[in-house]
This record gives sequence, structure tokens and C-alpha cells, in this order.
Amino acid sequence: MKLRSQHTSGGLKMAGIFVLLALVSTAFGQEAAAAATAAAEAPKYKDLAAFAESPGYSIFTANNIWMMLSAGLVFIMHLGFATVESGLTQSKNTVNILFKNTLIPCIGLLTYALVGFNLMYPGADYAGKWFGFAGFGVSVTDDVAALTDVYNAGYTYWTDFLFQAMFAATAATIVSGAVAERVKLGSFLIFSVIFVSIAYPITGMWKWGNGWLNTMATPFYDFAGSTLVHSVGGWGALAGAMIIGPRLAKYRGGSIHPILGHSMPLATIGVFLLWLGWFGFNGGSVLSANPALVSLVLVTTSLAAAAGGVAAAMTSWAVLKKPDLSMALNGILAGLVGITAGADQMSAMSAVLIGAIAGVIVVFSVVFFDKIKIDDPVGAISVHLVCGIWGTLAVGLFGNLKGGAQIVSQLKGIASVGIFTFIFAYVLFTLIKMTIGLRVSAEEETEGLDIGEHGNEAYPDFTPSHKS
Amino acid sequence: MKLRSQHTSGGLKMAGIFVLLALVSTAFGQEAAAAATAAAEAPKYKDLAAFAESPGYSIFTANNIWMMLSAGLVFIMHLGFATVESGLTQSKNTVNILFKNTLIPCIGLLTYALVGFNLMYPGADYAGKWFGFAGFGVSVTDDVAALTDVYNAGYTYWTDFLFQAMFAATAATIVSGAVAERVKLGSFLIFSVIFVSIAYPITGMWKWGNGWLNTMATPFYDFAGSTLVHSVGGWGALAGAMIIGPRLAKYRGGSIHPILGHSMPLATIGVFLLWLGWFGFNGGSVLSANPALVSLVLVTTSLAAAAGGVAAAMTSWAVLKKPDLSMALNGILAGLVGITAGADQMSAMSAVLIGAIAGVIVVFSVVFFDKIKIDDPVGAISVHLVCGIWGTLAVGLFGNLKGGAQIVSQLKGIASVGIFTFIFAYVLFTLIKMTIGLRVSAEEETEGLDIGEHGNEAYPDFTPSHKS
Amino acid sequence: MKLRSQHTSGGLKMAGIFVLLALVSTAFGQEAAAAATAAAEAPKYKDLAAFAESPGYSIFTANNIWMMLSAGLVFIMHLGFATVESGLTQSKNTVNILFKNTLIPCIGLLTYALVGFNLMYPGADYAGKWFGFAGFGVSVTDDVAALTDVYNAGYTYWTDFLFQAMFAATAATIVSGAVAERVKLGSFLIFSVIFVSIAYPITGMWKWGNGWLNTMATPFYDFAGSTLVHSVGGWGALAGAMIIGPRLAKYRGGSIHPILGHSMPLATIGVFLLWLGWFGFNGGSVLSANPALVSLVLVTTSLAAAAGGVAAAMTSWAVLKKPDLSMALNGILAGLVGITAGADQMSAMSAVLIGAIAGVIVVFSVVFFDKIKIDDPVGAISVHLVCGIWGTLAVGLFGNLKGGAQIVSQLKGIASVGIFTFIFAYVLFTLIKMTIGLRVSAEEETEGLDIGEHGNEAYPDFTPSHKS
Repeated sequence: MKLRSQHTSGGLKMAGIFVLLALVSTAFGQEAAAAATAAAEAPKYKDLAAFAESPGYSIFTANNIWMMLSAGLVFIMHLGFATVESGLTQSKNTVNILFKNTLIPCIGLLTYALVGFNLMYPGADYAGKWFGFAGFGVSVTDDVAALTDVYNAGYTYWTDFLFQAMFAATAATIVSGAVAERVKLGSFLIFSVIFVSIAYPITGMWKWGNGWLNTMATPFYDFAGSTLVHSVGGWGALAGAMIIGPRLAKYRGGSIHPILGHSMPLATIGVFLLWLGWFGFNGGSVLSANPALVSLVLVTTSLAAAAGGVAAAMTSWAVLKKPDLSMALNGILAGLVGITAGADQMSAMSAVLIGAIAGVIVVFSVVFFDKIKIDDPVGAISVHLVCGIWGTLAVGLFGNLKGGAQIVSQLKGIASVGIFTFIFAYVLFTLIKMTIGLRVSAEEETEGLDIGEHGNEAYPDFTPSHKS
Repeated sequence: MKLRSQHTSGGLKMAGIFVLLALVSTAFGQEAAAAATAAAEAPKYKDLAAFAESPGYSIFTANNIWMMLSAGLVFIMHLGFATVESGLTQSKNTVNILFKNTLIPCIGLLTYALVGFNLMYPGADYAGKWFGFAGFGVSVTDDVAALTDVYNAGYTYWTDFLFQAMFAATAATIVSGAVAERVKLGSFLIFSVIFVSIAYPITGMWKWGNGWLNTMATPFYDFAGSTLVHSVGGWGALAGAMIIGPRLAKYRGGSIHPILGHSMPLATIGVFLLWLGWFGFNGGSVLSANPALVSLVLVTTSLAAAAGGVAAAMTSWAVLKKPDLSMALNGILAGLVGITAGADQMSAMSAVLIGAIAGVIVVFSVVFFDKIKIDDPVGAISVHLVCGIWGTLAVGLFGNLKGGAQIVSQLKGIASVGIFTFIFAYVLFTLIKMTIGLRVSAEEETEGLDIGEHGNEAYPDFTPSHKS
Repeated sequence: MKLRSQHTSGGLKMAGIFVLLALVSTAFGQEAAAAATAAAEAPKYKDLAAFAESPGYSIFTANNIWMMLSAGLVFIMHLGFATVESGLTQSKNTVNILFKNTLIPCIGLLTYALVGFNLMYPGADYAGKWFGFAGFGVSVTDDVAALTDVYNAGYTYWTDFLFQAMFAATAATIVSGAVAERVKLGSFLIFSVIFVSIAYPITGMWKWGNGWLNTMATPFYDFAGSTLVHSVGGWGALAGAMIIGPRLAKYRGGSIHPILGHSMPLATIGVFLLWLGWFGFNGGSVLSANPALVSLVLVTTSLAAAAGGVAAAMTSWAVLKKPDLSMALNGILAGLVGITAGADQMSAMSAVLIGAIAGVIVVFSVVFFDKIKIDDPVGAISVHLVCGIWGTLAVGLFGNLKGGAQIVSQLKGIASVGIFTFIFAYVLFTLIKMTIGLRVSAEEETEGLDIGEHGNEAYPDFTPSHKS
């Protein structure tokens, strides 16, 4: 559970090319008091050399290794998203998708450094509220504290920032899939910047920054982000898909015309990388290398993924008559999203059930959204929103925390985060649509966004051979 | 060396959708005695909080990190297998191969949780025998023991399960390559479930579960599974390829018609991922982060891979006149399989020689199996069975354990595991062939299994461009 | 900073198939004295069992885990290079590129074991000079010292070798990109063997082996190799591209004809893998798991990559009118190369600036080299040489070490390494050109090197479908 309240950074060090945003920075700046509080509470090693000689240094180092590694694993999820999304879409839009998914983690890191981190973890004095901000930029006001166990028992300030920043960008990537093959590049990038740097950290703070969802009598529980990451991305995806409308050919003449992807190997590579990355996404959310908790979390995560994959494959076999690869792949992702809220609270058996149910849900959900003509090229809404809600609810139905009061808290969290995020994304997409426009022209959509937006192609000199 | 005998779990917690298998569970259930024994032998930290304060906690945590990471690395080998196998086969069968290779780790994890883990590590009271079973399902009868150094000095119960489970599924994946492009999907999945959950753990127990191969006067030595994993998969592959017969076009008119793969980049990605994964496969088989042993193992593993790649490339250059990429790739895998049995017992020089010899062997082996008309689309039999045998023998010829008595023990292990596994696989494939059928129709084989088995294609909307 | 001087190995254990080189080995062999010196300086744990019981064992183990992991991450960079380079070139040369990039790490590991490691880290008695050699082969003359903290406080001898060996081969891989699509396979492999085993370790020793660049009054600073790895590869690339000349079609008729790549997904996969691998390349160059330093390094590395990607994308948008994916990808690599020399000396803000400037530079540099008709298919010279120089200079302009004296030292390092390496590579390429020839025939270049050099194709049985 990613609650931290001792975050004490501040400063204006990294305004960089984001000068405009910096203009409002004077409104925020109370980090000095917070720093004093944190220092008073944690009087351990204030001296790096002394810390390195202390008995706690080697466990701190081990925890920090695990957290850095987790940051690396979450990073590789962005390659997973890039390959899943490009694999499940047409080759005429591949460059565009790769470009978006390459830029998103770049933008995510920079904006999280500038504002996101300090919005999400505003520090002790903001705790328990709806909004807080610890100032622009990342820096270490008291270097030694941030790099010893004064800041945090498990890892350094910089590891914390990196792990959280890698997380943040995933929310925008999820949206990308739902509006793929028709969204204007610049418009989507503007959406991403604002969504990742403002919307995601605000609801994230409600729980992980010790906001109101964490200080309720029965706290909302979301271990690694079924709601705070996946459904946030999913609500953005839903708003985007609704406003931008379906791809031209999809529901032509009132019936559903499947638009198939261009490379199932790419999609499969992506799902495996996402599963691997989830070792860090969930395993790192323990926020230490605690052997009991982390190894349990990896087991529940993997069993849920496995059960989701098998269940979705079987469901598609039964419902669609033949076993569908993209359903099996989405089933794995569904299982992963489903277990994320309670990965540290479940038995192996509960993890299998949660994952299997997610795998069944995702198949019917994909069919459902197609029926109501919400066109989601990669199934992002079904995987991240629907199974994110399922996983969040599952915390009240299975495992250590199950019970009526917990279910109510889970519903509060789902609803409050959902309402805020959906409205935010809906308004933002609408504003973009009304101003610079959200969707490429029909001609460009037909020709492909690779030529239209980039003047590139994905496979320009590709000449397969046929000498069978 | 993966011997453990203090495994004391049991219970029926995860029967789930595998109800049928559970009916026989009453035959097994003596885990109580084993638990008592283990507890008596290891009276260290029975209390999690006390353990976290103990001086051994940080080395335990470091060991556990390495083992969790190794589990993740072995997991990514499944993506390696998926990409190698789909890369080296025709694009009309790609969805089918990706589907199999995606489902295999899912099925492997679930069945290993249900029965495999407790068949392979039945606990102290079964040690030294041919068969044992500690009951259905994974769970922790004494939570604290399983999560402290009472269970194991190096890692938790859950890490142990995850690492072993990721291993188990590799055996089925190896078989997949040899029967690719003609096996019925359902039939192969049934084979996989039974092979992974029954055959692999039984011979695995003979050595790693402290069975008879481990309690002989001169114990059989197989560090990380040249025999217990790779040749087991290889024997299954040989049985499968013999029973299912060659692909239609392969030996038409009595001569050999090469059927080429569809994507060498995919195959190359796969081999690199497998090499990386072997850092965990071999490095994790130390069962701790012991700095002396693990770093030696990574060096011998990488040098053998490198030597195998160079040797196979040179051999193919000499024999086939031109340097063949797929041979170089298989040479790397051959070197990796070859070093696996003795990776912790070899000098750098011995590792280079073992890998180089494996790289030469694999080229001639591939040619040999083609000559005797056993059709193995990806060379799985040559890589995993032939080089698995070579690596196992090499333990008696090089390194710390070399000597006549060891060679005899290695031959006993190779032969006993081989006879059991080959007969098991042969009978199982034959039964499947006689009942639901093993092979798709000639029409489906010609059209491709992607359409026939899945109704999907791998590259449906792929339109490369040609504006050179 | 990778300075080590206590390396004490020697011996002739691994001469293997490299018998010819061994003939000169009698000229070198003074490792006995060095061993004695090192032992006297570090009288800590000379006994493995005693070491395992000592209080320092668990931090040593944690450090060793991080360094082994870093070796694995640098290894995966070779897959990154393979996919970037094959993605950005034509499909008729894909097998050739994959073959080279698969063999390079194999050859690199073997030659580094044979000579490179002992040239680069010749031991204490050679320190401060221009050239040293500790004998052929890797082995541990005093096993216990090499595996305890007597050898090194942070990791074992074998981990050290593996990490450094994975590094070494990257220099040759960089050259590969610049001469792609026209270089003869055998000629390039000969170049690689000599370049990796002789040229790279000699200049590497000047700094990291405690040579003259390290013992100057103001030592040259190159944290992880902007100069010692990337510009070394880049100088080799420049020499190669100049001598071999442009691809036939590139500057036909005096104007520039872009030759596009064949798979942007491959190129994108490669860049993500390289970024991930840089976690080990830079993070491992701390040479321990020091939590303060490593986590800072990962943050500066990732922020520079992100800034490079955004800056190159924006620059290409402005200059080329449309946002170019390959420029964004090269911008990420440029940012990574740029931060490498000073990743442990920069603030977050400085890292963003260094990366952003690198991202701008790389776009103009690619355009520039095209204008002067030096044909570099993947932009290797711009990314690794130009941004390597930029990153090395940036150490004198930003961060903890900035100042005039440092700038002078940085210029000395850039110039001395550049002159040595460029001349070495130029002479070597010229000798190869005059003897066995460097370039394939015009016919072969037109037909593709896959058929000409290998008799293989990359996509022989690839049949995309079109049922839209």
C-alpha cells in the first residue's frame, strides 16, 4: 500500500521548458514546515557516512534495490503497451501509435518531476484533504535525509520519485489505446500532459498521499492501483472513445465490422512484457523488499494472470466457437488488473478466482462495448476500467479485508475517483475538440495516420519473400 | 543444486476448476508428520516481527530478492520460447503457436500449484524414494515458518513455489516446438497439462526432491536441469515428433524440403530473451544469492552460450558453406542447455569447451534428425535432448566432479529419466491419437492452423509499403 | 566511476580456440607481484566461510546482486542494438544484421575473457601508464580473495568480469550500424574481434584501469563511458563509414535519397530495451548498490532520456515539418549517451538540460552527416560520437565538477581517446580493405546481403493477409 506522508521536497529547480506552468507556483510553497515535522519524527541517520556504517544499511540497500528494479519493470510496461496497442491495430497507423507510446513515458517523467509527484504526495501537512501541492520540481531540500532512512525506511527519495513517475505515465497510455487510429497527435499529447500531471496525481493523493479516502473510518483499499491507476486510465479511455466516436468503418451500415490488428506477435510480446512488468507494478507497491509480502504478491499476481488467460481462452472458445488469441491475451491483462487492488491480501485460491472471473468478464465486456457502439480498438476500457472496478470490489469480497464495511468503502473509492476522472477527461477532451480539434480528417483516417501525422510508414522497405 | 526436503505444505485450498483431480486426493495426506519434523530441525525464527529484527533478516531478504528476480527471468523465457518458435515457423501457423505458448505458462502455473509442486517436493518423509505427494494445492500450514528462515535459509515458501512453477512449464514448451504446424490445439493442451503436472515433477523429485538419484552412493548431479528439464522436454518432443509424423511437405518424394520460418527477427529476439532468462534459470538454481556461486554460474552460463553461438556459426559456415543465422541461434541455446547441468562446477575454460562442443553437436544433430525423417520444425530435439544429454555427461568429464563413478551416475540419471519420460510421453501421445486425434486434417495443415484452429490470422491488416 | 586497480588475475587457462594469440603471452606475466600487493592492502576475509558469517556479508551480497543484475541489463542492450539496427535498415539485409549483432556479444565475451579484461584492468603495478597487460585468460589465482571483499568491496571477481565484458562488446555493435547494408560479414567480424579485444581496452585502461587520464592533476571524468564506450564506438563508426563509402543508392546523382528502414516496431522495441539496459549501464557503473548514488543515477539517466526524446521530437517537428519517430527514438538514445559521462554528478534539472540539448544536437547532426555524404544508416555516428562528446563536455559545464580545469581535462580525454581510436580503426579498416576486401559487390548489395552472405532470408515464409 503506497501511503507515504513524509515527503518534504520542494523548490523550483526544474521549471525548464514548462515556464508557463511555473507562473502559478507562487500559490504553493509551504514545504518548510513539513520538512521540520518529518525531521522531528525520524531522528535516525542524518549523516550518510554514519548511515553506511549502521546495522540498518544493508536492509535499506536491499529494499532500495528491489524498488529500483521495480521502477525498471514498470518502465518496461510502456514497451508492453506500445507493442500490444500497435499489434492490435492496423499497420497504416503503427508509426503514430509507436510515437505516442514512446513520447508518453518521456512526457510522464518530465511532468511528474515538475508537478505530479508533489501533487500526489504533498507531504504531511496536506494529509487527509482533497488537494495539496508541495511546489514545483523535484529536489532534495535535505539531501542526507532523502538518501537515508530518515526520509523513508525502505528506499531513497530518488527511487521513490522514479518508481512513482514510471507508474504515472501508464494512466495516459491506457487512454491511448481507446482513441487509437483516429486521434490527432498533438491533441492527444496535450490531453496526456494534463491528464498525467493533474488528474492522476489528485485522485492518487486521495489514497496514497494520505487523503480523505485513506483517513475514512474504514479506509478505501487499493494496493497497487486497480482504481487509482487502471480505472483512472479506463475512465479517460471511456470519455475519449465516447467523444471521438468510432472509427469510420467500424459500425458502417449499423452492423459491427471487426477491424483486425496487424501483428499478433507484437501483441503477444506486449502482454508478456506487461505481465513481467507487473512483478514491479505490484511487487514494488509493497514499498520494500519485505520477503513475506513481496513473494506473496508475486504469486497472487501470477496466478491471477494465469487464471485470467485460461478463463478468457475458454470463454472465447465457448462463446465465439474458437479459442481467440487476443481474448486470451486480454484475459491475462484482465487477471492482472483484477488482482492489483488486493494482491497483498489474498490467498492463492482467491487470486485464482479473482483472475478467472476477470477473464470471463473481459470477454463479455468487449462484446458489450461493441454492441453499444463504443469503439475501443484494443479493449482498453474492458481491461482497465471494468476489471479495475471488479478488482477493487474483490477486496471487499475475498481475502483479509472482506466484509460489508469494506465493500462500502471500495464503492466510495470507485465512485469518487470515477466521477472526478470521467468529468475531468470528458471536459478536457471536449475543450480540445472545440478548439484545436480531436480527430483527423476522414481522408487521413482512411489513408492512415502514419502518412498524415508523421509522413512516415512503419514498414517502408519491408519485402517478405515467398520461396516456400 | 535444487535439493530441498523441508517442504511441508498441504491442504486442498486450490482445487478450483480442477475438481476431477481432487477426487484422488484422499490417497495422499500425511503432511502433518513432515511438518513436525521440519519444525524440530529448524528452531530459528518462528515469529515474523522477531525475524525482521534478527541479524539474518537482511541476507534472507537479499537471497529472496535474487530468487524472485530469477523467477521473473525464467518467466520471460516463455516469451523467448514463443518468439523463437513462431519466428522459425510459417506465418499461417503463428497465431496457433503464440496461443499455445501463451497458455502453457498459464496452465503450468495453475497445475503446478494444484499438484506439481507437491509431487516434486513431497517433503522429508518421502525422501529417497520414487514417488511422493504432499497433497493438493499450495498453502502455508505454518505461515511464519514458510516466510522466515525456518522453511528455508534462502527464501520464502511463496518464492520457492513461484520459481519452481516457472521452471515446470518450460518442459511442455519444448515439446510444443517439435510438433508445431500440425498438432491439434486441444490435444496438445491436454498433453501439456498431464506432462507438466505429472511426468515432470516425478522425475524431478528423483533428484531435487531428494529421491533415489540423489541418495545413490555417488549422487547423480544436475545443477539446473540439463536432464531434469531440458532432456525431459526433449524426450517428450521426440515421442511427439515420432507419433505425429512429419509435416506434409517436408519429405515429399523422399527428399528433404526445408520449410523455412517466417521471421528471423522474432527468432533472434527469442534467443536473446532465453539467454537473459538463463541468468535466472541457472543463477536462481543456486537457491540463494551466494555471491561466489551465483556470479560464477552467470559467467560459465554466458561463456558457454557465447562459445556455442560461435562454434555453431563456424560449423555451419564450414558444413553448409554459408554462415546460417538459425544455426548460430540454436548454437547459443545448445551452449546454454549444455552448461546447465554443471554450471556451478566448471572453470571458465571448461564452460567454453562445453558450450563450443554443444554448438558443434547441434548442427550435426539437426542434420541427422532430418536425415532419419524426424521432422522437428525448430530443432527442439537437437537443442534440448541431445545437448541436454551432452551437458549431463559433461559433469563427469570436466570440472570439480569429473571421474568414472560420476560418469556412471550421470548415465543412470540420463537413462532412467529418459526411459520414464519417453514411455510416459509415447503412451500419452498414443492414447490421445487413438481417442480425440493428435493431428489436424491435411486441408487444415495446408491452409494453416491459424484459420483452422482459431479463425484468426497473425497479420490480418498488415500492409507493408514499397516506396524504395 | 569504474576505477579499479586491485585486479590480480592471470594465467593461460582459456586460450581455447584462440591459440595464435597465445603465442605472444610470454611477453606478459608479472601478475604475482600485483597479487601480493593487493593481498597486503586488504587483509579482510580470506576465508569464504568466515566471510559468510561476517557482518559485511549481507551488504556485499546486495552489492553483488545489483552488479549481476546490471550485467544482465547491459546484455539485453545487445538485443536492443540488434533490433534498432535491423529495424532501421532494409529487409533484404536483416539476417546479416541480426547475425552480426548476435555474434558480437558472443565474440566480445570470449575475447574479453582471453585478453580484454586483463588489458583494461592490468592491475596495480601498471597503474598510471599507457598500456598494461595482466596475462591471458580469466581465472582466480587466489579464489577466496576474488570472491570475498578482499578483491573488491562491492562484488566478486566473476561479477566484475561479466559486467565489464558485457560493456566491451557494445563498442563494436555501434560500429556495425554505420557500415550496415554493405560490409562483408567476415571482414566486419575480424574488425570486431580486434577492435573489442585491443582498442577498446587500451583507452579504457587510461581512465578506468587507473591510467594517465585518471592520474592527471584534474582527472578526466567519464562516469560510465560517454567517451570510453560511446565515442570509441562512434570513432570506429566514422572511420568505417568513411572508408567503406555510402550505399549505392544513397547519393546517386548528387542528391540525398533516403533509404528507409523496414520495421519501426523493431526499432522502437530496440530503443526501449536500450533505455532499460542503461539502468544497468549507468546504474551498474556505480560499482555497488550504494542507495544514494544508484538511485540518483537512474533518475538522471531516465530524465535525460525523456528530455532527449521530447526535444528531438519537437526539433524534427519544427525542422522537418512533421514529428519523426526515428528522430524521437534517436533523441532518447542521444539523451542517454549524453548523460552517461556525468550521470552521478548532475541534478535532475541539469540532467533534463543535458538530455534536451543532446536531443536537439542529434537531429542536426544526422542532417549534417547526410549533407557531407557520410552514409550512416542508423545514425550511429550522431548518437554515439557527437552526443558522446557532448556528454563528456557537459561534465565540465554542469553539476558538481563544472569548471575550467575540468573542461580542459575533458577535452584532453576526448581528443586523446578520439585520436587513438580513429587512427586504430582507420588503419584496421584500410588493412582489411586492401587484403580481403571490406565491401560486398554491387550485385550483392542490390540483391541484399541476406542471400549473398548467408543464403537465408529474414521473412521467407511470411504471408500477410488482407481480409479487411
